[in-house]
Amino acid sequence: MKALEVKRDILRFSNSEATWTEDSVVTEYPVTVKINGEEFVTMVCTPEYIEDMIVGYLASEGIIKKAEDIDEIWVQEKDGVAHVKTNKINPYYHKLQNKRYITSCCGMSRQGFVFANDALTAKKMEQITVKVSPEDCFRLMDELQRSAEMFQKTGGVHNAALCDLNGTLLSRMDIGRHNALDKIYGYCLRNNITIRDKILVFSGRISSEILLKVAKIGCEIVISKSAPTELALQAAEELGITAIGFVRNQSLNVYTCPERVKLEQELNA
Amino acid sequence: MKALEVKRDILRFSNSEATWTEDSVVTEYPVTVKINGEEFVTMVCTPEYIEDMIVGYLASEGIIKKAEDIDEIWVQEKDGVAHVKTNKINPYYHKLQNKRYITSCCGMSRQGFVFANDALTAKKMEQITVKVSPEDCFRLMDELQRSAEMFQKTGGVHNAALCDLNGTLLSRMDIGRHNALDKIYGYCLRNNITIRDKILVFSGRISSEILLKVAKIGCEIVISKSAPTELALQAAEELGITAIGFVRNQSLNVYTCPERVKLEQELNA
Repeated sequence: MKALEVKRDILRFSNSEATWTEDSVVTEYPVTVKINGEEFVTMVCTPEYIEDMIVGYLASEGIIKKAEDIDEIWVQEKDGVAHVKTNKINPYYHKLQNKRYITSCCGMSRQGFVFANDALTAKKMEQITVKVSPEDCFRLMDELQRSAEMFQKTGGVHNAALCDLNGTLLSRMDIGRHNALDKIYGYCLRNNITIRDKILVFSGRISSEILLKVAKIGCEIVISKSAPTELALQAAEELGITAIGFVRNQSLNVYTCPERVKLEQELNA
Repeated sequence: MKALEVKRDILRFSNSEATWTEDSVVTEYPVTVKINGEEFVTMVCTPEYIEDMIVGYLASEGIIKKAEDIDEIWVQEKDGVAHVKTNKINPYYHKLQNKRYITSCCGMSRQGFVFANDALTAKKMEQITVKVSPEDCFRLMDELQRSAEMFQKTGGVHNAALCDLNGTLLSRMDIGRHNALDKIYGYCLRNNITIRDKILVFSGRISSEILLKVAKIGCEIVISKSAPTELALQAAEELGITAIGFVRNQSLNVYTCPERVKLEQELNA
């Protein structure tokens, strides 16, 4: 397996003194996905859980519907190529990949919310199957931070965790925040784990792309340490997702769908 | 002009108390670039300096060579469409846009360093035209932070500044870190500002994509508050760029090409 980080000699300047020292640097691994032998996409990621990531990515993009749509998937690690064999592919997928879309945060979603593949895969959350209290949010964010060892060492990755009210079920990290979500989604698809009643906890900013990914995965609540964008919040309102940001120092902001937040006090509107 | 941020009613929980309050949220603006009437790319950005961003993006991708290659550029703000008229376009640009490339950090560069359009536009830095001391780095990063008002208010943007040893020449912010660099590059191209002897100061992580953007712009030194990735450092070594990271609390790491760092003390290798 490829290393998640490598050692490097660097010149560190600290306390007015320069010294040569060894440092850990996080790796970026480009993997080109071929579908039935044809080059489809190149993803740059942290080299672990690559199959999960590809399954999650293809499903969230509407290229496949479920993990079983893929007959075989294997990674040729040395060459940085992943092979996907399927005969259940979305017949429109060539169309879906035609346009370029440069998102504000990371990766690209081809068309954004207004376009076909998102409309196909983003689900509107009609019901309330899970609620969180502020204390739940602090506790889950705290768990995410504590599990984020790699970040503490190299400062270069995003962390995401799928949780329920009892704690973290699954946590993944990646240099690409969208990849971390795809790794979680792919794992759930491949292991028949229902996501609907879960909570997604995330270290990075809630951009429109991330919010859509959350919707496609099927989570009703997303909790982030960082800020959301306005476009993400518009999508969250439209899709009925509870977006909670700036979870830090025993404080947080509920941006959308506060009906999923449990409070002890009565609120005046 | 589109607003850079909007007000929103949110539920804030702090000091064990929930209150409705007004908050500023940063906007994400999707703009679709049409070249000679044909849809080319959609960029999601902070809605200012859009023409600069497009010029910088097209140049750093090798689609155009200089600002004068564009005959006309105008933005239909309401529709989120930018029109570019040119008859000096790279004849291979249709080929360049064919492949999907999902980067670890943001946006997409079609092919990464190993591919044609980067090889065309990334310049190797053979000489040393500028040097920095650790104190220069601290001072320039400090200036960037102080100028980053929007970030302090909404927590949602990246900041980049083009500097020389006397201080900041130009600073730009964007929700997409690559956009902030494209806005700087485009401005320089359109105003005939030489970049070679300048320093790029950046709030975000140095991923391979960002490092390549720095190389394409033509900076010899990049200074970041955050971590680099190993792939970025490999490219920095290959291209002769000095990459300095973790500039915070009077401490910093020089990852590559330390010959551009001025130190008072003698260093033992």
